[in-house]
This record gives sequence, C-alpha cells and structure tokens, in this order.
Amino acid sequence: MQKQAWGERHWFIPDGYIPETSSGSLTSHESVCVLNTSDRDASLSFTIYFEDREPMEHIAFTVPGRRTKHIRTSLLQKDGAPIPVGVPYAIAVESDIPVVVQYSRLDSTQAENALMSTLAFPVKG
Amino acid sequence: MQKQAWGERHWFIPDGYIPETSSGSLTSHESVCVLNTSDRDASLSFTIYFEDREPMEHIAFTVPGRRTKHIRTSLLQKDGAPIPVGVPYAIAVESDIPVVVQYSRLDSTQAENALMSTLAFPVKG
Amino acid sequence: MQKQAWGERHWFIPDGYIPETSSGSLTSHESVCVLNTSDRDASLSFTIYFEDREPMEHIAFTVPGRRTKHIRTSLLQKDGAPIPVGVPYAIAVESDIPVVVQYSRLDSTQAENALMSTLAFPVKG
Amino acid sequence: MQKQAWGERHWFIPDGYIPETSSGSLTSHESVCVLNTSDRDASLSFTIYFEDREPMEHIAFTVPGRRTKHIRTSLLQKDGAPIPVGVPYAIAVESDIPVVVQYSRLDSTQAENALMSTLAFPVKG
Repeated sequence: MQKQAWGERHWFIPDGYIPETSSGSLTSHESVCVLNTSDRDASLSFTIYFEDREPMEHIAFTVPGRRTKHIRTSLLQKDGAPIPVGVPYAIAVESDIPVVVQYSRLDSTQAENALMSTLAFPVKG
Repeated sequence: MQKQAWGERHWFIPDGYIPETSSGSLTSHESVCVLNTSDRDASLSFTIYFEDREPMEHIAFTVPGRRTKHIRTSLLQKDGAPIPVGVPYAIAVESDIPVVVQYSRLDSTQAENALMSTLAFPVKG
Repeated sequence: MQKQAWGERHWFIPDGYIPETSSGSLTSHESVCVLNTSDRDASLSFTIYFEDREPMEHIAFTVPGRRTKHIRTSLLQKDGAPIPVGVPYAIAVESDIPVVVQYSRLDSTQAENALMSTLAFPVKG
Repeated sequence: MQKQAWGERHWFIPDGYIPETSSGSLTSHESVCVLNTSDRDASLSFTIYFEDREPMEHIAFTVPGRRTKHIRTSLLQKDGAPIPVGVPYAIAVESDIPVVVQYSRLDSTQAENALMSTLAFPVKG
C-alpha cells in the first residue's frame, strides 16, 4: 500500500533573513523544514524574492520519501551564488507532490539565542 | 505569460506592539513582511486598531511586482502621525491583488534579543 | 454602512502556561490578543482546559466594536479564582460574532526575555 | 448533551529538534500540546520522521476527554527507544477524533532561554 502524500504543493515564507553575525555557542541560521510523508521523492523548486532586485529562480532540492529535510537557507545556491546575508528576502517553495513546510530562525547576534518559527503559508492548486 | 498572484487580499494581525526601549546592538522593531509574487504592483491599505481610541485608517503602501517588502511598523504614518510606541494595537492589511503576509517582532528591551513571528490571519473575499 | 466582522467565532490555543517567576525589567505574562473589526461589541466566552482537573467554563469578556484587546490570561477569573500559575493548560475562545485571535507569551524566568507567538486555531461554525 | 470534538484528525510538525544541552534554571525541551474538547478519550498515534533513517511509527498516547496534554517529546518511546537528541526530525500526529495541536520549543542551550511556538499543520480527512 502506498503511503499518502500529506500537505500542499505551494508554500510561501515572506520573512526571510540570514543574520550577518553569530556569537555564543550556536551559529545564526534559518531552516526551511520540509516533511515528505509519501514513499516517493519530492522535487522542490525554490524562488527567492528580494526588495530591490530580480528573484533567484529554479533552485532545486530533493526530499526523499518518508523523510524530512531541515534545509539551511545558507546552502541554497543559484549558479554558485548563495542568498546574500543581512538582506530582507522571501521564499516560495513549489513541490511536485504534497509536502508540509515550516520555517524557523535562530538568531545568535547576541551571545544568548533568539528563536522564531512559523508554518509556511500553503496555497492549494 | 503572467506571473500568478498567490495568497489572499485580507490579512489580520491582532498582536501589534512597538517596544519603547532598545539595548544591545539591535533596535527593537516589528516588521509586516509582504510577498507579491505577481508581476503587477500590489496596493496595500493598512488599518491600525487600538484598545481605547478610534482606528487609524487608509495608510497606503505599495509592494512592486515580484518583490517582497519587510515594512517597519514604525514607518507607517497617518497624516504625519506614526503608530504610538508602548501601546497594544492590531493591524489589518487589505491588498488589491493576492499577497502573503507574515508578522515578526524583535524585542531588545533587554540586551539579549527576543524574537517572535507568525503568519497573519488570511480571510478569503 | 456597517463595518464587516472579519474572522471566525471559535478559536483554540493548546499551549497555555503562566510562568511562575519573572526577573529583569519585564513581567512574565501571556496575552490572548483579539481583534474585532465590526462596529458591534463582541461577547467572548473563555473555557480553560487542564491536564488533570475539570475545565473552568463561561469566563466572559467583551471586546468593543472596532477595537482590539490584548487580554492578560492572569486577569481571567472564574468565581474569583484565576488560572493557576506554573500549570499546563489550554484555551478555547467562543465569540458571538467573527473575531481574529492571536496568542503570545513573554517569559522572563531568566533576566533576558523569551517571546513566542502564534495565531490561535480557527474552526468554522 | 455530548461535548463537541473541535479540530482535525491529522497534524504535522516539520521542525522537530531536541536540544542536546541545557543551562540556567530551565531544561531544554519540546512540547506537543494537544487539546481534546470532546468528552471521549482521544487515541493518538505519533510517527517520527528523520533525515536519513526509517521513521519510528505507531507511538501511542491518550488524551482524556475535556483535557489537554502537553507532551514532552523526550518521553515518546518506540520499543523502549526515545527520539534521539541533537537530530533534526519531524512529527505526524493522527487522532481517532478531532483535536487541536500546537508545538513549542524551549531552548536553554545558553543560560538565557529562547522560545518558539506554532500551530501544527492540520489536514482534513
């Protein structure tokens, strides 16, 4: 029996930001956390939107079946160029099969950590 | 081919609050983060609701096509008057085309930072 | 023309907790933030659920028309008894007209603050 | 009259993580907070998904009628084995009756605390 692919295919995260500095024992970072409950691979395509320049499009990532991936945004690259740090941006995730997406940020600009997390916004269709 | 305008036209954020003080290396602030995936401008109208006085209405803001804007609430003004600091308030955002809205707050009242974030509440129609 | 009542009438917050201690310049607290966009009063009824005892029911609260209220959970009382501190609980909010509900917690158990926030879960009907 | 079971039967949390270390006066932990508003027991089944190994399935938990449970993820066990610490994972919760699910994490890796919280993602059906 095939495992069901729960979730949606389109997800949006308006508040992306990679902090410029870290201190203390943990590194500032963001994660786009994707859950693929089906037994097939999910092929993701990221689009990165900015305030004042054209989007970075068609950044590919695969999440294997019945696995989660907590994707560091600092690892996403387009033609070898990463997302710039210290710049407000937004994220769109498209998947070929339904998945569930959550966004979290750890900010260790100060020695003590700050955390935030939210579900991404799902759109049907 | 036109780019699709993903999201909704009406969004609500009940917990608005601009902290009165900052310390450490970052300034306390809130951001209303808006993503416009279409290739047309999105014309936003903010309404600010309070606990004990009439709302501030019809505060305009434009988000260009295929862009995000992370809007500092301290910059929103009605007839030259900003949102007062240290006062509980709520935010309604209306857009002429679908957008996606997330709300985040950085509180640096203490030297170390605290972060919170949530999607705004979308309403169809 | 009447102002529209945006939102839903039933909202749920599973993770309620009033921290026992505070330090630094801010007091630990939770807020249930309610936005009433209509021009009529919204009559709310809170139910407080616990892990090991019967719920506290029918706690009334009014949010005037075109106003927000950021309701400290420490002020909610049933027959003069407040919600106990240091105990896990959950919150249900019923309103006679549509409203929007967000939940936030400031924890100052340590001198530096921690913040969390989420929309409450809306149910139609 | 029977109490209504509000919510959904399927919930997903992509960003699970049990911090390895604690400091200060509070212990790092995550809670899956479940509210059961009905007057019947809710029988839950957790599935834990990982990045690089097979899921842990069929972890049972009961939430009594008209009660909430704030479930520490460190207490969930499969054949005596807990969820490993310091490893990214994701959570699926299935319930036999509708419930509401919220996820929160307290990270005290540093002496000062960091908090994050979000509703789980509900799926109908």
